Parts: sequence; C-alpha cells; structure tokens
Amino acid sequence: MRQATEHTPVWLMRQAGRYLPEYRATRAQAGSFMGLATNTGYATEVTLQPLERYKLDAAILFSDILTIPDAMGLGLSFALGEGPKFAHAVRDEAAVAKLQVPDMNKLRYVFDAVTSIRKALKGRVPLIGFSGSPWTLACYMVEGAGSDDYRLVKTMLYQRPDLMHKMLAINADSVAAYLNAQIEAGAQAVMIFDSWGGVLADAAFHEFSLAYTKRVLAQLKREHEGVVIPRLVFTKGGGLWLEAMGELDCEVLGLDWTVNLANARALVGETGAKAKALQGNLDPNVLFANPAQVEAEVAKVLDSFGKPHMDTSKPGPTHIFNLGHGISQHTPPENVEVLVNAVHTHSRKMRSPAG
Amino acid sequence: MRQATEHTPVWLMRQAGRYLPEYRATRAQAGSFMGLATNTGYATEVTLQPLERYKLDAAILFSDILTIPDAMGLGLSFALGEGPKFAHAVRDEAAVAKLQVPDMNKLRYVFDAVTSIRKALKGRVPLIGFSGSPWTLACYMVEGAGSDDYRLVKTMLYQRPDLMHKMLAINADSVAAYLNAQIEAGAQAVMIFDSWGGVLADAAFHEFSLAYTKRVLAQLKREHEGVVIPRLVFTKGGGLWLEAMGELDCEVLGLDWTVNLANARALVGETGAKAKALQGNLDPNVLFANPAQVEAEVAKVLDSFGKPHMDTSKPGPTHIFNLGHGISQHTPPENVEVLVNAVHTHSRKMRSPAG
Repeated sequence: MRQATEHTPVWLMRQAGRYLPEYRATRAQAGSFMGLATNTGYATEVTLQPLERYKLDAAILFSDILTIPDAMGLGLSFALGEGPKFAHAVRDEAAVAKLQVPDMNKLRYVFDAVTSIRKALKGRVPLIGFSGSPWTLACYMVEGAGSDDYRLVKTMLYQRPDLMHKMLAINADSVAAYLNAQIEAGAQAVMIFDSWGGVLADAAFHEFSLAYTKRVLAQLKREHEGVVIPRLVFTKGGGLWLEAMGELDCEVLGLDWTVNLANARALVGETGAKAKALQGNLDPNVLFANPAQVEAEVAKVLDSFGKPHMDTSKPGPTHIFNLGHGISQHTPPENVEVLVNAVHTHSRKMRSPAG
Repeated sequence: MRQATEHTPVWLMRQAGRYLPEYRATRAQAGSFMGLATNTGYATEVTLQPLERYKLDAAILFSDILTIPDAMGLGLSFALGEGPKFAHAVRDEAAVAKLQVPDMNKLRYVFDAVTSIRKALKGRVPLIGFSGSPWTLACYMVEGAGSDDYRLVKTMLYQRPDLMHKMLAINADSVAAYLNAQIEAGAQAVMIFDSWGGVLADAAFHEFSLAYTKRVLAQLKREHEGVVIPRLVFTKGGGLWLEAMGELDCEVLGLDWTVNLANARALVGETGAKAKALQGNLDPNVLFANPAQVEAEVAKVLDSFGKPHMDTSKPGPTHIFNLGHGISQHTPPENVEVLVNAVHTHSRKMRSPAG
C-alpha cells in the first residue's frame, strides 16, 4: 500500500501564518507582508515553519492571492492588522483598457521562492502553488480593498458586463501564465482560490466566476517533467454549485464547512473519469475549543466523508483534510498539533480492516 | 380571480431605511435609531414612507432584530454609521445563568407601533412583524456586535455546547412570545430572520439554528381573530439546507440570490401539505445598475421561478418578490420604483393566457 493511503493527508489553508510566534518574528524582521513575500529567504523560512512543528502532509507556497494585480501595476500594500489595499483601483473603462497580462518577470520573486522552497523541502512533502481566481482578483481590483457588500464590483458587473468580461479574460490568462510558471519553478500541485465566488448570484456565478476558472484550467500544464500536476479549485461559499464544479477539468475540489461531505461525495461521483477528490472542511473556529473537542470534531469530518476506497488502482474520491477556510490568527498553536495528530490517528483506524 | 394573483407581490427587506431621504430626515429628528424605533409616531411614519413612494404589496414593521436581547438587559445601542452594539455581552456561564425570557412589557413600544401602523395602513397592504432567529440573536449576544469570523460565539458553541443550548432555548421561547404579542397587536404575518444561520457548519446549523427555529414555530399562533397568520423563515446563506427547511412548519421560505429559484421550487415541492411559497431573491446590488438593467434582472428572477399556478384553489408554490438581503443604504431611490413597476408589469404578462 502506498504511504498516501495509510492515513488521510492533511494541510491547512494559511498554515504559514500569524498564529505562529516564529512567523511573527520573521515578519517583524522583514518589516512588512510584502517584504516577507518578495524575499526568497524569508518566504522559504516561513513556508517551512509549520512543517517543523506539525506532521503536515503538504507545504503551500507562502505568498498572497493578489500578486498578479500588483504586477499589473495596481500597487498592493498591507497595513498591519488590516487587509490588502490597492493604490489604483480599476473602476472605469479607461482603467480596464490599460489592463494587460503582466510581464511574468515582475513575479520572478514568486517563482524563485517556489524553487527555493522545493529545494529546502528535500522531498519531505509536496509543494502546492496557488493564485486567486479571476473573479476574486477582480473583486479586489475594483473594490481596491476587502468589502462587505461588493457594491463597486457588482455595480460594474451589472452596469457594464462588457468591462467585467474584459477584465476577467485578462485575469484568467494572467492566472494561467502565473500558475504555469509556478509549475515550471517546481510547484507539484496548483490551487485556485475563488475566495469570493460565493458572493455572486446564481446565474452570475456561472457567467463571471466559473467560466473564467474553466478558462484558467484549460490553459494549465497537465504535467511537468513527466509528473502529473494535480489542480485544486476552492470556491468559498460555493456548495450550491458543487454539481457544476464536478464537471471542471481538475482533480480536487475544496469545500467550506457548510457542505455535508457525504452529500458532496455522492454528488461529484464516486467513480468515473471526472470523479473529484474532496478537500476540507473543518470550521477553523473548532480550534478554539479544548483538545478533546478538537479531536471529536476532526473525527466527525472524517466520518462524514466515510471510508475511502481501499483499492487504489480504481479511480474514486479521496479525502484531503483541511479547514474550510484559512486558519485564524488567534488559533492556539498547540491545537493545530492536536488536529493533525487526530486526522492521522482516526483516519488510520478507519482504514484498518476492522475500522 | 383574487387581486393577489394578478401580479407577483413585492416588498423589500429594510424598505423603510436610510436610502430614503425622508427616512434620514425623521431619524435626524429622533436623534438615534432606538429613538426612532421606540417612538410609536416615528415608527409608524417611517414604516409608511416607502409605501407613499412605491406600489409595494406589504409593509414591514420598522424595528430591529435585536430588541429582545435589549429587553433582556444587554443594553443595545447604534452608533451612527456603525452596526448594533451591546453593552453587556454574554460570554460565560454566569452571564448565561442570568438570562431569561424578558418581560414582554419591556417590548410594549414594539406592540404599540404594530397597532399604530396597522391602523395607519387602513387595510392598504398587510403588515409583517418580525424577529431575529434564536441563533442570530445568540451571535450578537455573545459577540456583543457584528463579527466577520464569529469566533466568540462559535468558541462557546464548540467549547460549551451546553451553555449555547441553554441560551438558544431561552431565545426561542422569547422569540415565540414576542411574535405572538406582535400578532395580537395586529401583525398579519411574521418573519424570522436567521441572518447568520449561513455561517454555521453543516451539522451545527441543524443542531444550533434550525432546531430552535422549529421551537419558535411550534409555539406560534396559527391564526388571530379567525384569520390565518403566515409564517416566513429566511436563512441568509441557507441554500444548502433548503430541503430540511422545506420540512418546517411555516408557509414561506426566504431565499438569497445564490439560490436558483427553479431548483428551489422543484426541491420544496410543487404541491402537497408542506409546499412552501418562496420569497426573494434579487441581489440588492442590481439596484446600482441603470433602469433597463434593473428591469432585465427583475425579469430573470421572475422567469427563473416560472409561471405560478393559475388555479388558486390548489396548494402550490407562490412567488413573493423581494431582494435576497436588505436594501443598501446607497441605493438610488428612483431604481426602487423601476424595480417595483417591473415586478408588477412582467409578472402580469407571465400570468396572461399568452404569457
């Protein structure tokens, strides 16, 4: 039996982050978030930090989902304790007309970090590269920052769908070039974060988010140096559209905690060419409870997915344990160890002949 | 044919609100949001304001979803331009132990407003009363204000489910008493706003939100003075749980814009004793587009629900047009007129024999 089937693999979105004191120390040295992300040494160091503490089964590149619009010249910055901000929001026809797929050399720092991290990992675990989805990038590009109502980006969507489609096409081609360059630099899987797909109306999601995720997937390299590169798509709040996402040309779908894993497994197909592995979906707030409760909630998530197929020669759904969203900066680090160990222990038990 | 079947009825969540200049003028007179809500004259005046401008088919009591915890002694206030705040958040066992169903006399101002509004309406349109759901009240009671991660309330939920259940039971019994008193005061329908149900994990939604909505519904008066009182339940972000909500003992389910109305209609049953009317679900941001696009998006929502049953003697789904969430304070008032007229015109066309 292959190692990967002995237990359910686990990693955590934003696992290299502010909840770790060693991360905060490195960030203080770097001076700013972008100072951290653009420095190969720092990016490598913080990517590996959670792997030194926990028996995680994957590493994810330390970076941000908004590097592409920054390379387009919109001027990304992070004030301490606040979210991302762009100096130049894209709100009219003239601003959209200026957009183009950025020169990938401006994102060299990301590809250098990928190569450096891959080397530092020495094959311990695979390295996942990532990008924001075309729609999620557009949200930040139009709003200029986070938003709680998405008023500006949705105004453009409903008022000037032609501009929105133009921006999304450029974003999609940019994301594809960016992820392909990460693959060439050494990323062994790539993930598209559609963090804001879930804020769209039903019809708008298909037209303005999913269609452009498809446009990215159609351009991605299937393999690199003879090795298959799995592609992961995560739409936060996208549970209602799971059936449509089951048709995507990718290998893994990320799910947030609102989704019932048993239903999802049944819906995206137990077997067949398009059967997806499912990634998720513990509520990050579970990590504020005590260890016994963290263990119990981890077991509930594993049990709701159910026993994986034991015959690894057949295609079929696999579960990758994760949170349903990024880990909170307020998380007690010791509870992450409880979570990782509980995933391994409980899933091994599930896989035993008596389990 | 009854008047109600000539066109699809329409009203808007938060229709009496800050987007109306006459509302802002009255609020300025009242000095504060609670000054407005607790004064019978002001509450009546602002409730009727949108009905003077638009051909809306229902009025909704002007009040807030958080009046109950205020009556419990938690000290509700609204700073201008900010959300609600409680002076005394409920975060530990001692605070939960002190909670009880409030004396309904402390909410007399709400029931007086209902009676006054009902009188002022003179039968023009029905008056809807409302309350926050037990879970939504608990969110604010524990967080003490709005939240973007619900960390405190979910920490209590996962760490001390016993305390959470105790609080929710008290909230449910309070909501039931409160809505029954609104019905006695003259409310012709009542709506439960589960504004934050959608932030819960799948299993937690059933245990901590839906179960207590059921507890409220089980206690509500079915009729008043011989007239049936319809009960509406709206869970924002609850589309994934529609099948379970289809089993609720209520007449109408509110839906946000992420839900496909045709799917929802098929799912909650075309006919049968438990068939629900569906209310919703235009994205409020559509109202920032130009009039032609507002009309087109209204038509899409009506068409996605489809033709209503023409035979009103048979039970079956009815559509009540609404937004998928409260109207934005930034909405141009003239677009609301476009919306209301488009709903009436397009739905009349759909009901014509050739439509």
